[in-house]
Amino acid sequence: MNLLKQKILKDGCVFGDDIIKVDSFLNHQIDVTLYNEIGKAFKERFSQYDITKILTIEASGIGLAAITAQYFNNIPVVFAKKTESLNLDSDIYSSEVFSFTKNKSYKIMVSKKYINPNDKLLIIDDFLANGKAILGMKEIIDQANATLVGAGIVIEKGFQEGGSILRSMGIQVESLASIKSIKDGIITFNN
Amino acid sequence: MNLLKQKILKDGCVFGDDIIKVDSFLNHQIDVTLYNEIGKAFKERFSQYDITKILTIEASGIGLAAITAQYFNNIPVVFAKKTESLNLDSDIYSSEVFSFTKNKSYKIMVSKKYINPNDKLLIIDDFLANGKAILGMKEIIDQANATLVGAGIVIEKGFQEGGSILRSMGIQVESLASIKSIKDGIITFNN
Repeated sequence: MNLLKQKILKDGCVFGDDIIKVDSFLNHQIDVTLYNEIGKAFKERFSQYDITKILTIEASGIGLAAITAQYFNNIPVVFAKKTESLNLDSDIYSSEVFSFTKNKSYKIMVSKKYINPNDKLLIIDDFLANGKAILGMKEIIDQANATLVGAGIVIEKGFQEGGSILRSMGIQVESLASIKSIKDGIITFNN
Repeated sequence: MNLLKQKILKDGCVFGDDIIKVDSFLNHQIDVTLYNEIGKAFKERFSQYDITKILTIEASGIGLAAITAQYFNNIPVVFAKKTESLNLDSDIYSSEVFSFTKNKSYKIMVSKKYINPNDKLLIIDDFLANGKAILGMKEIIDQANATLVGAGIVIEKGFQEGGSILRSMGIQVESLASIKSIKDGIITFNN
């Protein structure tokens, strides 16, 4: 997705050889026009499927998923929650995710009411690096005996193992920008 | 907003005299069609202002804010972050918020890059109860010497003090549904 890659090159900030910050448009400040283009691009990549729901994870995935759902006939979005809220249903699917960014494990959960065995789910997330968040969401979909159609990712760190792991499991992973490497402040894309 | 009130009566779950769960359409599963109606309603309530940005707080506010921004010419959304991420800028505005739902205090922060003194901000959030989250965001706007235009709330717990506190400070608070009371499982609205 050219617009996205141009935006990454123009507004992304690189730290060392593996950290890229895109919080001016993707995950702290939101460029709503770009989000809509991202939603359209996900629809193109997954147009052949009869998707019933979008699954994402709080927090950065929520806005992306909500905007993207508009291009899938306003199907419901479900976002996995990260912490145990007193108001959350006790009847939940859950899994454990390790975050390298935050250097800790956390539990994610989805109320059993919102995924059923007939659901065909598209996972949407902002980043794919080691793949732990996607695997955690897949585990929840498996617990519900529902179907994972694929994963739509905005930025894949192609130099980390997440993409390979997920694709080797047969999951259709569609990244709108896949970063091959970051060297001396220069970002190179795979596609 | 009638559609919202009907949805609350139909799908909301009440616990005791003060807890209402609307996670089937508002803050766990997202009804994207309803979110669009909510966005339109916020535009109607704040159409007279030249708003430059929407400010919200992770997690539930993000989807609402992103969809709502579409009705304000796709102005940027900024979401305050709740926890100290290793990737977050050190140059931040911050404040402390106490959550009664989670029974703990947390820090919220916004990078200084994303609010400037010329900004006129509309705060969007899903719930208003004691007002602490809105006050925390107001503090951040004040730190940036920016202008708070008002607060668009989906559901106000009118029987708690948040709305009165904010309105007595001169803040224009627009709630799309204001709950007067919850008694014996019966929800009564103010407006």
